[in-house]
Amino acid sequence: MRPVDLIRRKRDSGELSREEIEKFIAAYTAGDIPDYQMSAWLMAVVLRGMTRPEIAALTEAMLHSGSVLDFSYLAGHKVDKHSTGGVGDKTSLVIAPIAAAGGLKVPMISGRGLGHSGGTLDKLESIPGFNVNLSLTDFRRVLETCGCALIGQTAEIAPADKKIYALRDVTGTVESPALICASIMSKKLAEGIDALVLDVKTGSGAFMKAEADAVSLAELMVETGGRMGKRVVALITDMDQPLGRTVGNALEVAECIEVLRGAGPPDLRALCVELSGWMFCLGRRTATVEEGRRLAAELIAGGRGLEKFREVIRLQGGDPGVIDDLRRLPRAQHQVDLVSRRQGWIADIACEQVGVAGIVLGGGRARKEDAVDPAVGILLRKKVGEMVAAGESWCTVYYNSAARLPEAQALLEKACSITPDAPAAPRPLVRQIVGSKG
Amino acid sequence: MRPVDLIRRKRDSGELSREEIEKFIAAYTAGDIPDYQMSAWLMAVVLRGMTRPEIAALTEAMLHSGSVLDFSYLAGHKVDKHSTGGVGDKTSLVIAPIAAAGGLKVPMISGRGLGHSGGTLDKLESIPGFNVNLSLTDFRRVLETCGCALIGQTAEIAPADKKIYALRDVTGTVESPALICASIMSKKLAEGIDALVLDVKTGSGAFMKAEADAVSLAELMVETGGRMGKRVVALITDMDQPLGRTVGNALEVAECIEVLRGAGPPDLRALCVELSGWMFCLGRRTATVEEGRRLAAELIAGGRGLEKFREVIRLQGGDPGVIDDLRRLPRAQHQVDLVSRRQGWIADIACEQVGVAGIVLGGGRARKEDAVDPAVGILLRKKVGEMVAAGESWCTVYYNSAARLPEAQALLEKACSITPDAPAAPRPLVRQIVGSKG
Repeated sequence: MRPVDLIRRKRDSGELSREEIEKFIAAYTAGDIPDYQMSAWLMAVVLRGMTRPEIAALTEAMLHSGSVLDFSYLAGHKVDKHSTGGVGDKTSLVIAPIAAAGGLKVPMISGRGLGHSGGTLDKLESIPGFNVNLSLTDFRRVLETCGCALIGQTAEIAPADKKIYALRDVTGTVESPALICASIMSKKLAEGIDALVLDVKTGSGAFMKAEADAVSLAELMVETGGRMGKRVVALITDMDQPLGRTVGNALEVAECIEVLRGAGPPDLRALCVELSGWMFCLGRRTATVEEGRRLAAELIAGGRGLEKFREVIRLQGGDPGVIDDLRRLPRAQHQVDLVSRRQGWIADIACEQVGVAGIVLGGGRARKEDAVDPAVGILLRKKVGEMVAAGESWCTVYYNSAARLPEAQALLEKACSITPDAPAAPRPLVRQIVGSKG
Repeated sequence: MRPVDLIRRKRDSGELSREEIEKFIAAYTAGDIPDYQMSAWLMAVVLRGMTRPEIAALTEAMLHSGSVLDFSYLAGHKVDKHSTGGVGDKTSLVIAPIAAAGGLKVPMISGRGLGHSGGTLDKLESIPGFNVNLSLTDFRRVLETCGCALIGQTAEIAPADKKIYALRDVTGTVESPALICASIMSKKLAEGIDALVLDVKTGSGAFMKAEADAVSLAELMVETGGRMGKRVVALITDMDQPLGRTVGNALEVAECIEVLRGAGPPDLRALCVELSGWMFCLGRRTATVEEGRRLAAELIAGGRGLEKFREVIRLQGGDPGVIDDLRRLPRAQHQVDLVSRRQGWIADIACEQVGVAGIVLGGGRARKEDAVDPAVGILLRKKVGEMVAAGESWCTVYYNSAARLPEAQALLEKACSITPDAPAAPRPLVRQIVGSKG
């Protein structure tokens, strides 16, 4: 096999065999194929696409480039959730404890903030002491003890994906359903799970802005998981405005604790119950999704989800006191309210601009070397469809650096459109279900 | 300017400005943009194309990435020939001596094997001692002394092209009219020539397989040359089967010497006379192409072309003895005949497979770091339209590594189709002339 022949074949819309893809990925991971050949091939894939069998082969090749965890010795079904990313998207912190409290095992390997979207690891690290960099041995121990564990990608897990992902980021080859599917599924299937619930975002703040694109990515991932013997379902959910009311690491942790206390914003709570419900159903804990939703709601109402979150925080070195006292989370030194000049209705909150405002404040990274400020962020006091009075605050900005405020403020003012008339009812949070064979 | 933004724009079929292209090429040449970003951009160019203004900007950016030679102090018109490359395409080694013997100055800067096609430099280097890496000072001296000089690209000449050309070869980004035009014209215009004859190949073994594509590439190059004040003509010529009977570096040198001796295969000889005829005409040495052809034929018949070749070999450090004794060229240790199982006519010899067979044998490169074996190659005892008896050899393979033979042999067997009936007469060697304003 000459790498250039595989590049040329893909360039000319041809199909690669499973064996060719396996060898290509293995050779690249081993350093026998240089970055410049991989990036040319990636660009050909972006522009020519891949067939379903090619995508399955790529996913498996990336999966088997490193360790594949095996938790079959543990009682209970191993189930995870993965989101394609958005603004204010913090469901993992609620769902993992609920699912574990309900008897599932959740070996969750997550990522950091990417582009305008936040990352689970950055959020968790705003809890004082919380360690997301566990060894696989410690990851296993935490999972065995409390039923869920939340870490970042280790060197052992899908190293091919790690290498390819870094290359895609700087070669304009991120936007490919085939490559996105292989990247997500190889990492998730390396967790040794039996079932997976995907939260595929659509709307202005999602990577897949058009619903049709989100659906076809979802279908791809569901099918790829199915080929590998996993039960997979994908929920196509709204990312036309930020999820919940907070954007920013510590603010989002506090909001998750509110949801686990039985309060919190209705949209976030509803989506967490929905996703947990599907996890229970796919994880054979309940016979139907409806029963799964009920179980999730009960685990919240009885406080068992919150206690599970306290337990995992403690086991991963964090301060469990934050559960009872949110003031133990990092807090910004300053805050300012953005007020509406006139009375009206919130018609739109542009996700991407809110996400970028959070990065500008220091809550995310402009470059991958940047440190993240856990305390800064945005509280959306009003969401789409809600009324605001003249002079009333619709948003509070939490900041530490006055120099960074004006740019963030300008982005937020631009992000929010207020109209004199009530807008149409917002579109449903869950737009479609893909692959719901339970 | 972030390189990834230019890659993304081209990926999405956008247009780059002259200034963006200049900066991108300059930064790549300076090593500030890594190969993996350039190769992703090149693949996007292959699949999305470039506009005429983009191609002009790219050509000029590559031309001015290094020195532009000036031979205006030398008597005689400075004329060169360039071929878009094919299999068994060896005319440069015949034409440069003929044109120089006829009074033109031929400052020929050539390339190495690219994709499935051979390269003039690899062929010349199979002559023991021949040095294609002359300094510009030595290049000038050889040109002044004997009227032609044959070298590889120096560090001073179009360094951007040198770097990009090597990368294209191993990243499947050779087949792009825009990139081919920019590569050829930037190098050729840096030679300080007055006129240029282009040999644009068409057919199964050409980079431009369809004649219409070859014509449009020819028009692109003729237009680009014209815009820069040069006389340029392009001949669209056949590459449906290998040119001549040999493929492989030393074998091809021997065949060129045969042509200069007044023998050799008729197709190779005819094309050399045709191209030389146009060089004499564009170089104001003869009033018409017909007179040019006659002059070329006379220079062969009188042995003056052969003597000129001996002279340039000697001046560039090679063993001039090869002219009289072809056994002084490198010879493979083994050879094997491929025989026809039945009587029939050669209906087709698939060029590209023959070219790849040559690479597999070691005569070309799979990666840009690879060394080339000068001795290996293929002798086509039969060409399209010729008869072969049952059990008769139609091809001899010269090889050094038995491990490489089976793959090459399989390619060759697949390349040749033998039919019971005589095929139609082959299409003419020269199909069209583009830009014949003399």
